[in-house]
Amino acid sequence: MIAVLAGGVGAARLLRGVLAVHPPGDVTAVVNTADDVVLHGLHVSPDLDTVTYTLAGAINPETGWGLVGETWHAMEALGRYGGITWFNLGDRDLATHLYRTQRLSEGAPLSTVTAEIARAWDLGLRVLPVTDDRLRTMVTVPVDEGEGPEGDVVEIGFQEYFVQRRHDVAVRSVRFDGDDDARPGPGVLDALADADRLVIAPSNPIVSIGPLLAVPGIRDAVAARRADTVAVSPIVAGAALKGPADRLLRELGHEASVVGVARLYRDLAATLVVDTADADLAPAVEAEGVRCVVAPTIMSGPDEAAALGRTVLDA
Amino acid sequence: MIAVLAGGVGAARLLRGVLAVHPPGDVTAVVNTADDVVLHGLHVSPDLDTVTYTLAGAINPETGWGLVGETWHAMEALGRYGGITWFNLGDRDLATHLYRTQRLSEGAPLSTVTAEIARAWDLGLRVLPVTDDRLRTMVTVPVDEGEGPEGDVVEIGFQEYFVQRRHDVAVRSVRFDGDDDARPGPGVLDALADADRLVIAPSNPIVSIGPLLAVPGIRDAVAARRADTVAVSPIVAGAALKGPADRLLRELGHEASVVGVARLYRDLAATLVVDTADADLAPAVEAEGVRCVVAPTIMSGPDEAAALGRTVLDA
Repeated sequence: MIAVLAGGVGAARLLRGVLAVHPPGDVTAVVNTADDVVLHGLHVSPDLDTVTYTLAGAINPETGWGLVGETWHAMEALGRYGGITWFNLGDRDLATHLYRTQRLSEGAPLSTVTAEIARAWDLGLRVLPVTDDRLRTMVTVPVDEGEGPEGDVVEIGFQEYFVQRRHDVAVRSVRFDGDDDARPGPGVLDALADADRLVIAPSNPIVSIGPLLAVPGIRDAVAARRADTVAVSPIVAGAALKGPADRLLRELGHEASVVGVARLYRDLAATLVVDTADADLAPAVEAEGVRCVVAPTIMSGPDEAAALGRTVLDA
Repeated sequence: MIAVLAGGVGAARLLRGVLAVHPPGDVTAVVNTADDVVLHGLHVSPDLDTVTYTLAGAINPETGWGLVGETWHAMEALGRYGGITWFNLGDRDLATHLYRTQRLSEGAPLSTVTAEIARAWDLGLRVLPVTDDRLRTMVTVPVDEGEGPEGDVVEIGFQEYFVQRRHDVAVRSVRFDGDDDARPGPGVLDALADADRLVIAPSNPIVSIGPLLAVPGIRDAVAARRADTVAVSPIVAGAALKGPADRLLRELGHEASVVGVARLYRDLAATLVVDTADADLAPAVEAEGVRCVVAPTIMSGPDEAAALGRTVLDA
C-alpha cells in the first residue's frame, strides 16, 4: 500500500509515475484542499481536479491545470457583466464544479463527491481530500497600490495570491484558516498508518504540503511513519520547477534548496529524493539526519515520471 | 409611462413590440421570479433572462429561451458525472447565472443584479423582479411510477414540473411558497401606480402572472388601476400558443378560453385583447364586464409584435 501526500501539478505527475509501476488499487492520494475557493457560488477544488484530470489523461498539458481541448465561452460571456474572470474556468471544467457544488448542497461530504468524480473518470486509485472540513490557506501580503497606505499589509485567500496577483508579491506570512477544527477526512489516517510506503510529493512545502500537515493528527501520523516516508524535493538547483515555492521559502525564513527542504521534512521523512542537479548537496542533506537519494526528478514526460515513481517506491 | 406584468416568452415578445412603438426609458417590466431555481448552486431566473435576452436580440429564436448560437460543453461534460442535466444551461448562458449567484452571495439584492445585467445588455427599459424575496411556484402532481403508491401526490418545484416532467402531468394544485412574506421589489409599486398604461402580458395566468399577483400589495395595486389596465389573452382559440396554460386552467377549474381569462382578470383589467380567432367570443368577454378588443395577437415576428404593442397602448 502506498500513500502520497499531494498538492497539485507536481504531485499529479508523480502519482502518474507511481501508477505506472504499482497497482492503482493499492495507491491512495491524500490531497490538499486549502486551495479550494468558492467563486460564482461554485466550489472549486484546484488540487483535487489537477490530480484527477492528470491521472485521467485529460489535463491540459500546456497549463498543467484544466482540461485539454477546453473552450472558454462561459468566461468570455462573463466579461460582459464585469464578473470575476481572473480565475479561468473552462466550459467542461465548469461541469466538475457544478457537480461538486450540487452534491455538497445536498449534504454529501467532499470526500464522497471526490470519490464519485474519480469513479466517473475511471481512476483506479483512491483520491482523498485531506479533510471534509473547511481549511483555507490565507496569505498576508503588502497592499496593492490604492488598497491602502504603502507599508500596510492585507490578508488574502490563496487564489487571490496565486492567480489574481500571479504570486508576484512578497509574502509576509501564511496561515491555514480552520486548522484548529479540521478533522482528517474519512480514510486518511488509516491510509497513512497502513501504507508500506508514504510519499511526500514534490509539491510546495509551505502552501501545498503545509496545509495537510496542519490538519490536527496528520503531522503526527506521518512522523510516526518517518522510517517509511520518502519526500521528493520540489526545489531543484535552488529553484521551483513551477510556482513560487523557492520565493515563498526564502520570504518565510527558510532556505530555498534541497537542504532547506530536508530541514522542513526531517521529522517526517527518513529519505529525501533530490535531483541529480543537486548531487553536490547530498552530504548537506544527510547532515540534517535525512538519507539522500540522488535521481532525476524532472518529470517532463510519462517515462521520467515512471522512473521517479520507481525511485520513491524503491528508496 | 408603461408598466408590463411579465412572465417569460410571451411577455418578452410583447415587450419587444411595446419598445418598438414607445420610448424604452418609459417602460418598466415587472417580471415573475417564482420560476427561479437554484441548480448546481447557481441562481437561475428563467423569466428575467428570457425577457433580457429577447430584448437584447440575443434569444435563441427556435427555443424562445437561452442564447442564440449557444454551445453546450458544460452540460455535456456534466453528463459524465450523472449531474443534473434535465435543465439545460448553455455555456454562455451559464455566465449570467455565475454573475447573478456571485453578486447575490455578496449581498446584492436580485433587483440590483437584474439592473446590472440589463445594463450590460444595453436594455433601455427597466427590468424589475417582482420581489427581491424568495417566492417559488410549487405544483402538486400525481407521483411518478416508482415514486410512491398510485394515486398519491407529490409537491414539486415549478421547473421539475415544467422542464423535468415537460408539464406532461395533471396538476392538482399550485401555490406560491413565500407569498405571505414576499415584499414587492424596489420600484414595483411605484411603477404600477405611476403608469399611464398597465399591461398584463400574454403569459400563463396561473404560474406566470399568478405569482406576481400573489405578492402582497400587487393585486390591490393593479386593481386600483383597473381602468388603465389592458390584458392580452394568452389563450387563442381555446389553446395556449406555448406551454401548458390551457391545460392548467382546465385542471384548476377554469375555462381555457378568452372568457376564462376575462373571468380571472376582470377585477384587474378593464380591457382584454383577444385574438381575431376569438372574435366570436367578444360578447361573452364583455358579458364578464370586460371591454374586449379583437386584434391579431400571435407575435410571429417583430412586425406582429409591434402591431400588438400599438394595440395595447392604444386600447
